[in-house]
Amino acid sequence: MKPLILITNDDGVNSRGIRHLARIAREFGDVIVMAPDHNASGVSTSITCTRPLRAFLVDEEPGITYYACDGTPADCVKMGHEHFCPRRPDLVLSGINYGSNASVNVVYSGTIGAVIEACLDGYPAIGFSLLTHSPSASFDGCTEAIRHIIHQVLESPLPEYTALNVNIPYLPAEQIKGIRVCRQAKAAWKDSLEKRIDPVGRPYWWMTGKFVCENPGEDTDQYLLGEGYVTAVPISPDFTDVTSISTLKNLES
Amino acid sequence: MKPLILITNDDGVNSRGIRHLARIAREFGDVIVMAPDHNASGVSTSITCTRPLRAFLVDEEPGITYYACDGTPADCVKMGHEHFCPRRPDLVLSGINYGSNASVNVVYSGTIGAVIEACLDGYPAIGFSLLTHSPSASFDGCTEAIRHIIHQVLESPLPEYTALNVNIPYLPAEQIKGIRVCRQAKAAWKDSLEKRIDPVGRPYWWMTGKFVCENPGEDTDQYLLGEGYVTAVPISPDFTDVTSISTLKNLES
Repeated sequence: MKPLILITNDDGVNSRGIRHLARIAREFGDVIVMAPDHNASGVSTSITCTRPLRAFLVDEEPGITYYACDGTPADCVKMGHEHFCPRRPDLVLSGINYGSNASVNVVYSGTIGAVIEACLDGYPAIGFSLLTHSPSASFDGCTEAIRHIIHQVLESPLPEYTALNVNIPYLPAEQIKGIRVCRQAKAAWKDSLEKRIDPVGRPYWWMTGKFVCENPGEDTDQYLLGEGYVTAVPISPDFTDVTSISTLKNLES
Repeated sequence: MKPLILITNDDGVNSRGIRHLARIAREFGDVIVMAPDHNASGVSTSITCTRPLRAFLVDEEPGITYYACDGTPADCVKMGHEHFCPRRPDLVLSGINYGSNASVNVVYSGTIGAVIEACLDGYPAIGFSLLTHSPSASFDGCTEAIRHIIHQVLESPLPEYTALNVNIPYLPAEQIKGIRVCRQAKAAWKDSLEKRIDPVGRPYWWMTGKFVCENPGEDTDQYLLGEGYVTAVPISPDFTDVTSISTLKNLES
């Protein structure tokens, strides 16, 4: 039987990015899309606990069925594999996201939230992000790398409890130097909230900020993306900082 | 100058848990509370990118100023330290959450989302969760452990890029065996979405599920909580699974 591939994203079911990813994935198996019916950028691994969820058929094309859900990307993974997949998926994909999920963007990303959910649910899972925010972006440059990574992961499984955060420079295919497996760069967003005054004189704030990544090591996603490589960071839903367990024994009582 | 302690949560500014935590923290310094104006459980490290945020004064009592924001716990940390703290905070706290954030609950938790945000912003940060969902829960059993951990962290700083996820059994103080620094247990939520039919005949789904944690090791939070210990798991905003980087070199091209 053909592999079954479940796909979601955080830009919503109407994003060109998810259509393109679904069409690449169709080369490898049957595809079910279950994606938010709205833009859910920045929602991390949110799940919807305070109201019920809806899900519905959106579109069909050969080898691909598109569904939408009014929840988060992590909700979509739960909904997709529990209620809309005809059999157990062999792979869960998320994206193609518009904009970087490298470095610390990983903690905010709904694209990666879906990947973490899928990993906890026991599936091999990959998030794909393209380093452009242009809604009319060309996917020509990223297609071959995505195809290569899907092929490799279907051929040789990811380690248990490990998923992939793949970021792709927005470059023509011939300028992409290759794929590198590497670690997440340390960085931070500074001055995140810009204050403005509304017509009634009351303050409000917009999320904005400066991305500060000083001296990313040469083994990090942020550095390698700048050098023209596609980066694949293995990520884990185990947040334990094991190296600090012994350091912090002073907390015990 | 007294330490300045910024506090948030995900249950909202009107939760008894955050009032109790603020009053413990006041023993150590000046306290600014900036918390969601609503229940934001399960929102992980979400940030609000698609609309502007509001923030406003809610209440004052000796040593504590309470503000609320209409965003997420991570938004509250950004808002609090950038726009409402009179000086740089010495410590960021989140909680006291009603319900466990042990094991994989950490990935969904808004309480811990705030802690991850604060850690990225460069602050020592601790999330406190009490293992009960009763809104009228007594905090008598957890107070001494919280006081001890705040004291220790103010005295000897956490390692850079490391925060604490503290969970506390809902037991009388004399039945709590001590505090253990340990790792996050592996587990998963199964059968997360329960299908129902609305009066018009259309399906909808409620988030629910069975928490499955088979054979948690004796060095895990889930095991130690069951034994009557307070658990403190060091967590990191670096999601890299470093042990898999060499394993996955087959992905490179």
